Amino acid sequence: MKEDKLAVLALGGNAILEAGEEATVETQMRNLERVFQHILPLLSFYPRLVLTHGNGPQVGNILLRNQVCHLEIPALPLDVCVAESQGQIAYLAMQAWDRVCRRSGTVVPMLSVITRTVVPKDDPSFSEPTKPVGSYYPEKKAKELERSEGWRFIEDVKRGGFRRVVPSPDVLRLVEEDQLSALCDRMEQPFILLCNGGGGVPVISTAEGYEGVEAVVDKDLASARLAQVLHADILIMVTDVEAVYLDFMSDSPRPLRNATGADMRRHSKEGHFPSGSMGPKVEAAARFVESTGRRTVITSAERLMDALEGRAGTTVE
Amino acid sequence: MKEDKLAVLALGGNAILEAGEEATVETQMRNLERVFQHILPLLSFYPRLVLTHGNGPQVGNILLRNQVCHLEIPALPLDVCVAESQGQIAYLAMQAWDRVCRRSGTVVPMLSVITRTVVPKDDPSFSEPTKPVGSYYPEKKAKELERSEGWRFIEDVKRGGFRRVVPSPDVLRLVEEDQLSALCDRMEQPFILLCNGGGGVPVISTAEGYEGVEAVVDKDLASARLAQVLHADILIMVTDVEAVYLDFMSDSPRPLRNATGADMRRHSKEGHFPSGSMGPKVEAAARFVESTGRRTVITSAERLMDALEGRAGTTVE
Repeated sequence: MKEDKLAVLALGGNAILEAGEEATVETQMRNLERVFQHILPLLSFYPRLVLTHGNGPQVGNILLRNQVCHLEIPALPLDVCVAESQGQIAYLAMQAWDRVCRRSGTVVPMLSVITRTVVPKDDPSFSEPTKPVGSYYPEKKAKELERSEGWRFIEDVKRGGFRRVVPSPDVLRLVEEDQLSALCDRMEQPFILLCNGGGGVPVISTAEGYEGVEAVVDKDLASARLAQVLHADILIMVTDVEAVYLDFMSDSPRPLRNATGADMRRHSKEGHFPSGSMGPKVEAAARFVESTGRRTVITSAERLMDALEGRAGTTVE
Repeated sequence: MKEDKLAVLALGGNAILEAGEEATVETQMRNLERVFQHILPLLSFYPRLVLTHGNGPQVGNILLRNQVCHLEIPALPLDVCVAESQGQIAYLAMQAWDRVCRRSGTVVPMLSVITRTVVPKDDPSFSEPTKPVGSYYPEKKAKELERSEGWRFIEDVKRGGFRRVVPSPDVLRLVEEDQLSALCDRMEQPFILLCNGGGGVPVISTAEGYEGVEAVVDKDLASARLAQVLHADILIMVTDVEAVYLDFMSDSPRPLRNATGADMRRHSKEGHFPSGSMGPKVEAAARFVESTGRRTVITSAERLMDALEGRAGTTVE
């Protein structure tokens, strides 16, 4: 089979659920359909499309339900909740994708695979967790959970509550990357392969096999790894802003149109990017570009096709 | 690539969680590892192994958590809960499988795919739901949910509560069956493809695409369909008894060693099999054998290899 161009596209969590929206099926389907309409034209250029996605609100809700019910039903740890969120979002994405295809009179199959991401056992984030997950707790409850579950919390003064923080370790590899690679080489084109939801279920490698860990893998860093091993022609990160901005928090943010990996790292060191959102994207872009010599584009769903032609977004190469 | 023998193996829910066991990760992993040790030798005979599984207790717990928390977080409908349970069980199965492989010094990759099953819109079960799901409610709460959610309930006198019943419609096809078929033809052997969890996420086909329905697909019937379209050499159903028994409820149940599809249907009509458990297996066996002329084996995990050699289990052909 002729191997046509392959893109890895990492979809920001906001593509599925925007801040403040309720996590109903209807809302998530509507958002996904909207985003997928912008993605559909991409398949003419990249008939092998690997789609990854965030899972913040979904896994937060699954965690919360587990916590609320823990006296009646054993609460499942974060790694299992991530796997559940992969199943949930994969299903909604397939449903939404099929509707978009139907409306446009095309048929492009989407296959959804549950995947795990191996993280370093000794990642410093295990002793200094910083990634907030789930809901807000009052101080008393937070202290209680610190004692009973060994969880760590940070206080969010603005929201007036305590929030659990978990490690966000770096990415070594995806457990299933060889199989994903074989799939990409052998599936009939065009196709979409959905995987690496929420950055993948975090596991560490032990003598007995893999062991799940209560952590959250950054989906952009895991997507950069995936793009590298799949020999992707491009890594695209779709987010809620049209481009990467310099001086983003200032009164006059400036869109960054073109940059090298080294530029991106330098800007990052200079503090141009908020660590929680754009930081990992910038690092992911730099890693992919530096290890492959290929291109990364960061933009919004609406400007996706413009960005590929250099008329919008941020291109790193 | 040489196409070696392909088996579809449907794993009963009890392989993951036995009646009365708490749904912790540890218990589910231990059960899965035990069952997978019995399945490992199968790969020498069927190096293309498609694994499907039940999800009763898992989806029941997910449903219950959704219901308990519905005032704080929108409760997701049953189809989405089935998708979540696919993600959960796929992850635990991959973890358990890798450990079993590691111990035996082999490497066989398991790939897990989220799948949907198309059911008939006009299936009679939609007006007469009979499949109990989730937990037991007191009468008052059940009546309330009948009014607010349109749910249907049956009274379980023995357990002293009301339980939601949902439709268990027949199987038309799996949405992803062409892709699963391509995968089975093209993946490097040996491999395990895990899919069709809980019988697949139930959907109906509409003009706009697929629409999720609040129902439960019988995993054995869906597995029979899958075995048929994958041109499987054998359909194996692993359950908690060693064979199909005639007069199962009597004082002297007799194991049925060999039967034709027609025999099975006749025994079924004569009321030999309890409808909830062995009934769908018998129907699935008859369908696969009659449509393909190939063999179905029903047995326990412990007797699996004996049953393939005709020294245990029930063989339908």
